Amino acid sequence: MSLFSRLLEIVDRVSEPSVVHAHCDLPCGVYNPLQARIEAESIQKIIQKYHDSNDQVFRDRALFIKDERAELVKHHLWVLWTDYFKPPHLEHFPNLHDLFWRATKKAGESKHTVEPQVAQELLDLIDEIDGVYQKTQS
Amino acid sequence: MSLFSRLLEIVDRVSEPSVVHAHCDLPCGVYNPLQARIEAESIQKIIQKYHDSNDQVFRDRALFIKDERAELVKHHLWVLWTDYFKPPHLEHFPNLHDLFWRATKKAGESKHTVEPQVAQELLDLIDEIDGVYQKTQS
Amino acid sequence: MSLFSRLLEIVDRVSEPSVVHAHCDLPCGVYNPLQARIEAESIQKIIQKYHDSNDQVFRDRALFIKDERAELVKHHLWVLWTDYFKPPHLEHFPNLHDLFWRATKKAGESKHTVEPQVAQELLDLIDEIDGVYQKTQS
Amino acid sequence: MSLFSRLLEIVDRVSEPSVVHAHCDLPCGVYNPLQARIEAESIQKIIQKYHDSNDQVFRDRALFIKDERAELVKHHLWVLWTDYFKPPHLEHFPNLHDLFWRATKKAGESKHTVEPQVAQELLDLIDEIDGVYQKTQS
Amino acid sequence: MSLFSRLLEIVDRVSEPSVVHAHCDLPCGVYNPLQARIEAESIQKIIQKYHDSNDQVFRDRALFIKDERAELVKHHLWVLWTDYFKPPHLEHFPNLHDLFWRATKKAGESKHTVEPQVAQELLDLIDEIDGVYQKTQS
Amino acid sequence: MSLFSRLLEIVDRVSEPSVVHAHCDLPCGVYNPLQARIEAESIQKIIQKYHDSNDQVFRDRALFIKDERAELVKHHLWVLWTDYFKPPHLEHFPNLHDLFWRATKKAGESKHTVEPQVAQELLDLIDEIDGVYQKTQS
Repeated sequence: MSLFSRLLEIVDRVSEPSVVHAHCDLPCGVYNPLQARIEAESIQKIIQKYHDSNDQVFRDRALFIKDERAELVKHHLWVLWTDYFKPPHLEHFPNLHDLFWRATKKAGESKHTVEPQVAQELLDLIDEIDGVYQKTQS
Repeated sequence: MSLFSRLLEIVDRVSEPSVVHAHCDLPCGVYNPLQARIEAESIQKIIQKYHDSNDQVFRDRALFIKDERAELVKHHLWVLWTDYFKPPHLEHFPNLHDLFWRATKKAGESKHTVEPQVAQELLDLIDEIDGVYQKTQS
Repeated sequence: MSLFSRLLEIVDRVSEPSVVHAHCDLPCGVYNPLQARIEAESIQKIIQKYHDSNDQVFRDRALFIKDERAELVKHHLWVLWTDYFKPPHLEHFPNLHDLFWRATKKAGESKHTVEPQVAQELLDLIDEIDGVYQKTQS
Repeated sequence: MSLFSRLLEIVDRVSEPSVVHAHCDLPCGVYNPLQARIEAESIQKIIQKYHDSNDQVFRDRALFIKDERAELVKHHLWVLWTDYFKPPHLEHFPNLHDLFWRATKKAGESKHTVEPQVAQELLDLIDEIDGVYQKTQS
Repeated sequence: MSLFSRLLEIVDRVSEPSVVHAHCDLPCGVYNPLQARIEAESIQKIIQKYHDSNDQVFRDRALFIKDERAELVKHHLWVLWTDYFKPPHLEHFPNLHDLFWRATKKAGESKHTVEPQVAQELLDLIDEIDGVYQKTQS
Repeated sequence: MSLFSRLLEIVDRVSEPSVVHAHCDLPCGVYNPLQARIEAESIQKIIQKYHDSNDQVFRDRALFIKDERAELVKHHLWVLWTDYFKPPHLEHFPNLHDLFWRATKKAGESKHTVEPQVAQELLDLIDEIDGVYQKTQS
């Protein structure tokens, strides 16, 4: 059985709607913090490969590709913040706004730097957001 | 512990690189069929909501938002096909090209229609791709 | 003297840097709530023209163009929130997060509807944001 | 007197939200040379910061962000030229085409260079366009 | 031998640089009016299929896809006008500005309408531009 | 008579539909391998100019503009593969999938390198695709 199937199985056991979430403004109701996480993992890998390389063409390309990925992280997080979360969620997670503010600011910071630590901090903040998100799904 | 953390745990046990995959052309090495799947789930929900609604504004919007989502499905699948899969994979999965062709064609078909069946067929094809993908990760 | 020159004059009197603001992630330091406002004015006009028209082609087009404009409003507001405002601002404007949350949610709502009232509420929220912004410039 | 002229009049009396104009192809009737100007100010700041910095990562990023901003300047100016201005305007401003041609060419030139002078020339051309625009509004 | 190869052969005989033209702002020196023409042919076909269909979903989709294609026509024409043509060209083709203005305005008009005549007029104007372009290549 | 008119004449003699092809997902029926070829010619020129220049700003810009052009090549080829070609074509051209896979992979490779040879190989692969395409038009 594939990993994906196993994931779906677990998800099914925990709660019905949790792999089906909203991310367009219809709204369709399909949201997933993994979209931001995948881009942040990309940033982490890019920074690592940047330091591993001596090729100037590669390093130059790494910088503008990292900027694009960080922009996508910001976009996916903004959509989650504005569209998925509703006022009742805020009552249970009063630091929600601050969490998203710090995460999107960290994504911005990840554009300016090639420090591996920043990419890790960004991933940690996205995990924290995902923790909140999962609680709203149960 | 959140679902996401649990997922990462399982993934960690199975194989190291499996939550870290390539999707930009650096390449960074970060790929994930879930990107296509999330958009396809969106299409499925949009079609369902289209039929549940009598509001003409909503139905008109559903059509162009569905087109955008289907375009994203195509894009994410194309990237996987061209960038993630390598000649040695093809030897083990000789129908790889055909599978991606049918899946991207199905995504195109999902633009033209509001038939729920088409969205389901698209999800099934993405799951089939994910099955192949997971095997290449072990 | 042109309207634009007059605007610049007023701006000059109020504070030096107020026509020079940051909106890219260099960051370049150039921000301006007018970017969101222009798109919101567009939404207001589109809704008005939608109701004034009996042409089905025109009305269909109005809907998807309005969605694009609302997406731009959300984007410009998100950039202001994450990139321009800093922790010290938050101390002086403790409802900053809530204000941006309501404004971006209202922009999302303006996609779903052809109610003129929603466009007006969106403009009012952007004006409220601009009020805060102007105070941070003095 | 057109609705738009009346709107500007009211705007003048109030003095706060001084700009309301056409920029989508509905057309919605909202145009504003400030959209191009904001991006051109960004270019000017980027060039300045480029020279002030010794950080190679920063300088590399400055170059591709400047290209994006210059592309936006071109786009906003093209839209004004094609969509806002009408044949009767051309009679009163016979150099209109040439002015837009030089301004958009200057925006292209601002991609190739880090000369502060080019950014200033671009801003001057946009101000000249704004001067024409304001006269068509009275 | 393919049609494309034959075309290249003819082009080679006529003048060396004529299949190699600039269209990015490096500038790379690669321009081609065919880019605009292909999108305009698309508009023509979309309008034809719009009238041939009774399917409301199809007709709704035709409208927003036509808008996208027309936007691309405008973009490709604007790039040619600003980037390819130089002051010396203007001396030989004094109506160059007016021709591009009418062509881009026609592309805008093709968004508002499902009149086949408008698509034909747009194609004719692009052919006229291509005629000028070809003369500058010899 | 312009080169373009002559091209159309030849095309008309060979087969009716060959300048009218599908490239949007309406589908409108308008496709043309020239769209990919124009971008690939751009890549070739960019690499050549990269080597001819000693200006670091120019060379940095060349790299990210080349990436954008290569992304467009990939997109245009993917659209042709998924949307234009149909199962019956595959019977006549059994290596169709492999050809597109190699061509899109080569476009990806052209992002990583400034080797002129890679740009030439990309052009050759697009010509090979065009050869197949032309045969399907007769």
